[in-house]
Amino acid sequence: MAEIMKVHGSVISTATQRVLACLNEKELEFEFIPINMAAGEHKKDSFLAINPFGQVPAFEQGDLKLFESRAITQYIAHGHADKGTALVIPGRQMATLSVWMEVEAHQFDPVASKLNWELIYKPMFKIPTDNAAVEENEAKLAKVLDVYESRLAHSKYLGGDIFTLADLHHLPNISCAMKTQVKKLFDSRPHVSAWVADITSRPAWSKVVAMGK
Amino acid sequence: MAEIMKVHGSVISTATQRVLACLNEKELEFEFIPINMAAGEHKKDSFLAINPFGQVPAFEQGDLKLFESRAITQYIAHGHADKGTALVIPGRQMATLSVWMEVEAHQFDPVASKLNWELIYKPMFKIPTDNAAVEENEAKLAKVLDVYESRLAHSKYLGGDIFTLADLHHLPNISCAMKTQVKKLFDSRPHVSAWVADITSRPAWSKVVAMGK
Repeated sequence: MAEIMKVHGSVISTATQRVLACLNEKELEFEFIPINMAAGEHKKDSFLAINPFGQVPAFEQGDLKLFESRAITQYIAHGHADKGTALVIPGRQMATLSVWMEVEAHQFDPVASKLNWELIYKPMFKIPTDNAAVEENEAKLAKVLDVYESRLAHSKYLGGDIFTLADLHHLPNISCAMKTQVKKLFDSRPHVSAWVADITSRPAWSKVVAMGK
Repeated sequence: MAEIMKVHGSVISTATQRVLACLNEKELEFEFIPINMAAGEHKKDSFLAINPFGQVPAFEQGDLKLFESRAITQYIAHGHADKGTALVIPGRQMATLSVWMEVEAHQFDPVASKLNWELIYKPMFKIPTDNAAVEENEAKLAKVLDVYESRLAHSKYLGGDIFTLADLHHLPNISCAMKTQVKKLFDSRPHVSAWVADITSRPAWSKVVAMGK
């Protein structure tokens, strides 16, 4: 019998949500171990033994210890190809899927994370929002979403015809952004808007959202 | 017969160098198509048709068009498992390799790229260096390299016992950093220092360095 998968993380962490969404799509059982970041639990030795960078999430299965959310999702998706949603595509199309996973990581995430930090997390922590940074990153995000609009006009999902990790990795940041003024950048692009509506309404994602409430 | 691989890029671009190093390790033939970034060739329609984000490198093989350097290296490494250096490890250890590829992308690259921008590229373009940003990012890099020092005390390479993409992806930024004051952060950590000496002396990397001269 396979050893139980353990996810150490926080339900309000976008990186943790990425891993939870993946496990739900795969219909896999796992144990969730909440890490109290306000109490600094992610900087304690017991957590640093799993992730030396002191960031959530961290993942354990027997003696295998993993961190970095996108490495964890890839391990889960490749290791359970026969369960739930495919999430990866074997063969040559995996290359295109990899491109769009890298696009999420390097083009989308830095800009979307910065906007969510300025517009959601800073107000939560009573730190003043840097409006110049918001303006600059909205302009950057608009350009990124122009490329997505072209891509999604020709392909139902970013990686190809089916929902994959390339889409899933976007879910936490998109869900945050849709609660802010940044929503207009998604809404004004019809293919992007339809894609957002599609992927955010997946039951596996709704379960993650419910955990955070 | 497999179609020829074409790399569109610039020999002074760290992302292009990442792909060239991978092709050299795999001892594969390819066609290099120089993109004159000073003349804005990466923003012209012919280039945008391969990479809509207008960044080098871009990759073509027959009708397959890829971009994002780390997606290209993964395609090459997985697609030519029997040629040259392995670069990836099949099975469960691939998960650990993925972790360290993500560490390079999310912990190392943003900080090292920023330092190289401030200390190499800004002086080249006669833009004043932001010394506060240098100080801040040196402190961040020191913390990242502390984790690398621990890792490399127990593992010859980041991904495991053999040289893989997790190491290779670092080469361009490390080679730049070693020409700056940031070198001291690598030199002062014995396992990091030995690893840098090892990976930067690989013949496949020397060929990339020679192309830039």
